[in-house]
Amino acid sequence: MKSYLKGALLLGSLFIVGCSSLVEKKESANIIIKNGTVLTMNEKRDIIENGVIVIKNNKIISVGNEDLLKRYSAKKVIDAEDGIIMPGMINTHTHASMSVFRSLADDVPDRLNRYIFPLENKMVSPEMVYLGARHGAAEMALGGVTTMVDMYLFEEDAARAVKEVGLRGVMTQNIIKYPTADGQQKGETLERAIAFVEKYKNDELITPGFGPHAPHTVTKEELLKIKELSEKYNVPVSMHVAETDVEFDRIKKDFKMTPVEYLDSLGLLNERFIAAHNIFVTDSDIELMKKREVGIAHNMVANIKSAKGISPALKMHDKGMRVGLGTDGPMSGNTLDIIGQMGYVAKLHKLDTKDRSALPPKKAVEMATIGGARAIHRENDLGSLEVGKLADVVLIETKSVNMNPIFDPYSALVYSANASNVDTVIVNGKVIVENKKIKTVDLEKNSKELNNFKGKVQKIAETL
Amino acid sequence: MKSYLKGALLLGSLFIVGCSSLVEKKESANIIIKNGTVLTMNEKRDIIENGVIVIKNNKIISVGNEDLLKRYSAKKVIDAEDGIIMPGMINTHTHASMSVFRSLADDVPDRLNRYIFPLENKMVSPEMVYLGARHGAAEMALGGVTTMVDMYLFEEDAARAVKEVGLRGVMTQNIIKYPTADGQQKGETLERAIAFVEKYKNDELITPGFGPHAPHTVTKEELLKIKELSEKYNVPVSMHVAETDVEFDRIKKDFKMTPVEYLDSLGLLNERFIAAHNIFVTDSDIELMKKREVGIAHNMVANIKSAKGISPALKMHDKGMRVGLGTDGPMSGNTLDIIGQMGYVAKLHKLDTKDRSALPPKKAVEMATIGGARAIHRENDLGSLEVGKLADVVLIETKSVNMNPIFDPYSALVYSANASNVDTVIVNGKVIVENKKIKTVDLEKNSKELNNFKGKVQKIAETL
Repeated sequence: MKSYLKGALLLGSLFIVGCSSLVEKKESANIIIKNGTVLTMNEKRDIIENGVIVIKNNKIISVGNEDLLKRYSAKKVIDAEDGIIMPGMINTHTHASMSVFRSLADDVPDRLNRYIFPLENKMVSPEMVYLGARHGAAEMALGGVTTMVDMYLFEEDAARAVKEVGLRGVMTQNIIKYPTADGQQKGETLERAIAFVEKYKNDELITPGFGPHAPHTVTKEELLKIKELSEKYNVPVSMHVAETDVEFDRIKKDFKMTPVEYLDSLGLLNERFIAAHNIFVTDSDIELMKKREVGIAHNMVANIKSAKGISPALKMHDKGMRVGLGTDGPMSGNTLDIIGQMGYVAKLHKLDTKDRSALPPKKAVEMATIGGARAIHRENDLGSLEVGKLADVVLIETKSVNMNPIFDPYSALVYSANASNVDTVIVNGKVIVENKKIKTVDLEKNSKELNNFKGKVQKIAETL
Repeated sequence: MKSYLKGALLLGSLFIVGCSSLVEKKESANIIIKNGTVLTMNEKRDIIENGVIVIKNNKIISVGNEDLLKRYSAKKVIDAEDGIIMPGMINTHTHASMSVFRSLADDVPDRLNRYIFPLENKMVSPEMVYLGARHGAAEMALGGVTTMVDMYLFEEDAARAVKEVGLRGVMTQNIIKYPTADGQQKGETLERAIAFVEKYKNDELITPGFGPHAPHTVTKEELLKIKELSEKYNVPVSMHVAETDVEFDRIKKDFKMTPVEYLDSLGLLNERFIAAHNIFVTDSDIELMKKREVGIAHNMVANIKSAKGISPALKMHDKGMRVGLGTDGPMSGNTLDIIGQMGYVAKLHKLDTKDRSALPPKKAVEMATIGGARAIHRENDLGSLEVGKLADVVLIETKSVNMNPIFDPYSALVYSANASNVDTVIVNGKVIVENKKIKTVDLEKNSKELNNFKGKVQKIAETL
C-alpha cells in the first residue's frame, strides 16, 4: 500500500510537472523588444539583425536573435518594426536647468561674465532649477539619452526633477569662489554639496557628486577639500577643464602649470573625475589624463558655437581613453540630445584632420554609448546591450523619410537621424518614452510654466 | 412709368449691393495663417508678433498683424498656435535622386571616382531617378524646403517626381564628358538637356536648366555650347565650382587660370549661373563672381563631411553676394533639409573665424530664404513674405520640447530646431505638408519601393 501510494504520488507529480512545463515552458521576463537591428556596442561591436532584447526587472537578461522569442515571454513585447535598438545614450556634461534661458542672448562676447553669471545671480532659485531640469531631462529622454551628467546650483532640486522624469543622473552640485544664488557665504555651496551627497548617496537613479566649476574659478583650498570628500564618499567629481584660453593663461600664470597639471597636483585626477571640454590640453596633459583614467566629456557643438575650438577628443578616443559626448547646457549648445552631437563630432574631426575617413560613424556611436559609460566610470553596468547590464535601451524608428534607406545603421544614426526619430526609451527597466511621447511628466504643463517664467527672465535680461 | 421703373431698379440694386456688403464685407482669400511670429525676411527683416499671412491663388496678398482678420476671410484658416511663420526655405544644390544610395559607403577615400560613378553607371535608370527624387523631394517638403535646385541624370524623370510632390524645382540635366547611364555617346546628355528644357520651359513649378558637372569634367566645347543655349532659352546653369583641389590643380595646369576665371573666360558667369561649393576660390575669384552676379550654393555639411574645407561663403554674404544654402545629394550630406544646414553654417563660420559673434542666427535664416532666392535669381518672387510674392510659406511649431522657450525666433530656428519641427508647408498657394504629414505622395509606398531597390544596389555595391 505504502509503496503503491508513493508510486501514485510520484506519477501525479510528474504529470503536474509535465503539464506545467508544457504551459509554462517559457521563462518570464518584463519586457521583450523584438524585430530590430541591435547595435550591441559590446566588445566586438556585434550587430544582430532581427535581434531581440529581454529585460527582467532593471537588468538585461538576454540579447540575441529571434530564437529568444521561443525561450522568453513578457507582458510587454515591443515590436521594433525594423528599427535600430541601441544602448541608451549618455550625455556626459550638461546644465539641464539652463533650459529656462535657451535662445537668450546667444553669441554675445564674454557671455559667461557679462550675461550668464549676473542673470543666474538674479534668477536662480530652487523652483527655477527644478522647472528647468524637468524640461531638460524630458528633452534628453525624448532624444534617447538615458544617463546625464549635470552640474548646477541647487543641484538637489535638479536631481528631484531628473528622478521624476526617470533618467539616470550623475548630479554634481556646483562649487565656485564667487557668491551665487545658492551660496552667498564662503564654503556654503560646498556644505550644500555635502548635504546633497549624504542624502542621495544610496539612490538607485541618482549618483550625487561634486561639481567644482573650473580650475581658475574655485579656490585651491576648496579643490583640496573636494578631492578628500569625493574619496570619502566615493562619488564623482565633474568639472570644466581647459575650456578657455583665459583659464589656461590664468593657471599658467598663478601656478606655472597647465590646468590639467594643476588639477593633478591637487590629486583630483583619478577614476572619479569627469573633465568637460578639454580644448586647451597639451600632448603631455593627454597622457596624464589617460594615466589617471579621467573621464572625458566632449562637447563639440557648444565648443564650436562659442568659437573656442575643437578638443583633441578623437586622439584621446584612439588612445583608448574614456571619451563620451556632452551637450553642455541648453544656453550653450541649445539642444540636449546626443544624436545631434554625433553628427557634429563625426564631421568636425574630419574637417579638423583633413581626412574624410577620420571618425567613422561607428566611432561616434561608441562615444555616445560605451564611451560615455567609460567616461563616467560605469562601463560595468552601462553603455552596451549585454547580459547583466542595467536595462537602459533606446529604439530608433527607421520609417521616417530621413531614415531611408539604411545600408549602414551607424551611418543612419550619425549622418541622417535627429532626436525626433527616437521612438522608445527604457531606463532601469522602465519605459519612459513610448511612441515618441514621454510618459513620466506632463510636458505641456511644464512648457507652460517655462513660458510663464520667460517673462521674468526677459525683464531681468533687459537690465543686463 | 419708364423713369419710375428705372428708379425702382436703381433702389433695388442699391439694396442688393448694401446687403452683400453687409454679409460679404470681408475680402475673400484662399488661405489665412494666423497667430504666429512672422519672420518676413523683407528688406527691413520685420518680425510681426501675432502675425497674419493672407494667400490668394498662388500669391501672398497681405502680410500684417491680427487686424487683417477683420479684412479677409478664407475657407482655410491655419492657426499657427504661436509657431514661427517664415518663407519657404530654398535648397540651392542637391541631387535628390541619390537618396536611393543614402548611407552606402560613407567616408570612402576618392569616393566619387571609386564608388559613385561606377555605381551610377550600373544602377541609374529613369525609374531609379524618379523614385529617388520623389523620396528626396518629400523629405525636403517635410523639412520646410519649398524650392530645390537639382542636378542629375535623366533629370526629366526627377522633374516629374518633384512636380508630383508639389515642390518648386530648378532642375538641371547633368552634362559630363564621360559615358553615363543616360548618355553613352558624346553630346547625348546635352541633347537630352535641350529636349528637357524645351519640354518644361513654360512649367509653373519646374524651371529646367543645364547642369554641367564641373569645370574639369566637361569639355570646353560643351561648356561654350551650354553658355549659348542658356542664353537662347534664358534658363539657369547649375554647376559644381571650385569644389576640390584636384579640380583646381587640373584647371590651373590646363588653362593657367583658377576654375572661376576659366568659367568666366567662357562667358558662363552671369545672372543665370548657380555655383555650388566654391571652396577653392581666391579673393579675386570672389570679386569676379560678385561682379557677374553669380548665385552661390553653400553646402557646409557635405563639404566638411568630405573634409574638403569651409567655403568663404560668409565673406561673400557680407559683400552682398547672392549666397544660399544647399544640402548636396543625400549620399554626400545625408539629409535634405535646410534647417540642419543653418545650424552647421552658423557654428562652423564662428569656428573658422574664431569669432563667436560671426554669422548670428539671423544671417543663417537670410541665407536659407532670401539669400537662396537671390542665389537662384528669383528674389523678385521668392524668399520673403511680402505682398505680391509667390505663396511659399512654412510654419514651424514651437510646442516641441526642443523649441522651448523662445527668446529669439532666429536662434530657435538655427540652434534648436530640426526638420521634425516643420508643421505646415505651402508651395505656390497649395498646402503640401500639414500636421507634419505630406499630402501629395504616398510616402510609405515610396519607402517600400526604395527598400526593394536597396537589394539591387547592395549586390552591385559588393562588386565595387
